Amino acid sequence: MMKRINDLVGFDNLKIVQNDDWFKFSLEAVLLPYFVKINSNCHNILDLCTGNAPIPLVLSTMTDKPIIGVEVQKDIYELAKETVEINHLEKQITIVNDNIIDFANKYDSDSFDIITCNPPYFKNLESSEKNSDIHKSIARHELLMNLEDVMKISRKLLKNGGKLYMVHRIERFIEVIDLLNKYHLSPKRVQFIYPKINNSANLFLIESSKGGKNGLIVEKPLIVHEDNGDYCDVINKMFKRM
Amino acid sequence: MMKRINDLVGFDNLKIVQNDDWFKFSLEAVLLPYFVKINSNCHNILDLCTGNAPIPLVLSTMTDKPIIGVEVQKDIYELAKETVEINHLEKQITIVNDNIIDFANKYDSDSFDIITCNPPYFKNLESSEKNSDIHKSIARHELLMNLEDVMKISRKLLKNGGKLYMVHRIERFIEVIDLLNKYHLSPKRVQFIYPKINNSANLFLIESSKGGKNGLIVEKPLIVHEDNGDYCDVINKMFKRM
Repeated sequence: MMKRINDLVGFDNLKIVQNDDWFKFSLEAVLLPYFVKINSNCHNILDLCTGNAPIPLVLSTMTDKPIIGVEVQKDIYELAKETVEINHLEKQITIVNDNIIDFANKYDSDSFDIITCNPPYFKNLESSEKNSDIHKSIARHELLMNLEDVMKISRKLLKNGGKLYMVHRIERFIEVIDLLNKYHLSPKRVQFIYPKINNSANLFLIESSKGGKNGLIVEKPLIVHEDNGDYCDVINKMFKRM
Repeated sequence: MMKRINDLVGFDNLKIVQNDDWFKFSLEAVLLPYFVKINSNCHNILDLCTGNAPIPLVLSTMTDKPIIGVEVQKDIYELAKETVEINHLEKQITIVNDNIIDFANKYDSDSFDIITCNPPYFKNLESSEKNSDIHKSIARHELLMNLEDVMKISRKLLKNGGKLYMVHRIERFIEVIDLLNKYHLSPKRVQFIYPKINNSANLFLIESSKGGKNGLIVEKPLIVHEDNGDYCDVINKMFKRM
C-alpha cells in the first residue's frame, strides 16, 4: 500500500493523505473551491464524492462553517478521515462513508446552502476502458452513481437559493446543462478551463442555483499553462493565496 | 438618408453599402463566417437575417458555392442588393426580400448544406427599450421572428448532416442550447468571445449539426481586444487573411 502524506502544495499548513495506487487529488479539486462564492448567509457545505477530501480542505481556508464530505469507498474514506485529523480540522469537517444516494435519503430536504461535487467523469458504458483497480474505477466511472443522481440529490438537499458547484469534462457539458434544467437548478456562472490559450477547453466549472432566475455569466477564460508549460499566474496565485 | 459605400475593412476588393441611420454591420458579422467550416460536400449556403449582406460577402471569399441571403426589411434588402452588385457577386449571391418563415415555407425540406444566422439579439418584451427607428428595432429585437423560428427553419431546410452556424449574446446561451436540443440540432462546436482576456464573455459562436452525434468542442477562447484596446492579432489576421 502506497499511502503517503503530502503537503497540499501552496497551502503552508495543510497536508493531504494520498495513496498512489488508489486515488490522488487533481488540479480541479483546487480550482473548484476557488470558484465557490461563500457569503455570510452560508451555514453549511456538503461535498459529494469527496475522495481524500481535497475540496473540504481548501474550503476550510475560506470559511469556518461546517463542511460534510461524503465518500462511498471505505479505503478512500479512511484517507479522508486521516487527512482531516492530521490537519486538526475534525471540528469543522465531517467525513461520512456512504453512497451519496443513501446519504441523501437520510437527510431532510432544504438542508444545505452549498453543495460541491467533482464527480466521476466517465459514463459506465460497457465499452469504456475501466481501470483494473476498483478504487480508481469507482472514482473515475459512474459505477455507483451517475450525473443525474447529483442533480436529484442537490435538488432535494439544497435550500431554496442554495448553490450547486461542479467541475466536469467538457464532453459532458450539454448533458450537465440539460440535467440542471430538468431539476430546476438554474445555471448562473460557468468558467471554461483551457490547458493553454490556444487549446480547446477540457474542463468547466459551473454554479447553479436552486430556484434561481435565468441569466448566465461566462467568466473570463481560466488558462492553466503558459505556452512553455509553466502554470499561469492565476494558478500560481491560487496556490499562494493562503 | 445616410447611405454610404464603405470598404469592408481588410478585404481589399470588397465594399459594403451601409446606412448609418438604419443598419451597420458589426464585428460578429465577420467573426461568424470565419467560424464556418466549408468542406467539399457543401453545395449551397443560406444566410438568415442577412442585413446588408456582410456574412454572404465574407463567405464569398471562402467558397464559390451559391449563397442566398434573406432580409425581411425592404430598405435593408435594397442595401444588400446594392452591396452584391457593387462587388459583382450577382452570380454567386442572391438576396431575397422575405420573412424567414415565409421563405422557409416556399422551400423543400433538406435543401441546404449550411445555414448561417446573426439574429436579432433581444427578446420582444413589452418592457424592453426598443429603438425608435423601426429599421434598427427589427434588426435588434425579435419583432418579426424569434430564436425558435431559426431552429424550426434550420431543422426543416438543412440536409441531414448539414450545419447551422449562429452568433448570439451570452445571455441567450442556455436558451439556444435548449432550443437546439428541442429541434434535434446537436451542438458540435462553441467558441466564446471575450472582449478582453480578463472580461466575461459577451458573445458566442455555435455550430450545430442536423442529426449529428453528441459531443461538444469548446474552441480556444476568442479574445477581441488587448488590454490597451487594440485588436488582438487573431482579429487583425482575420481582416488581413484575404
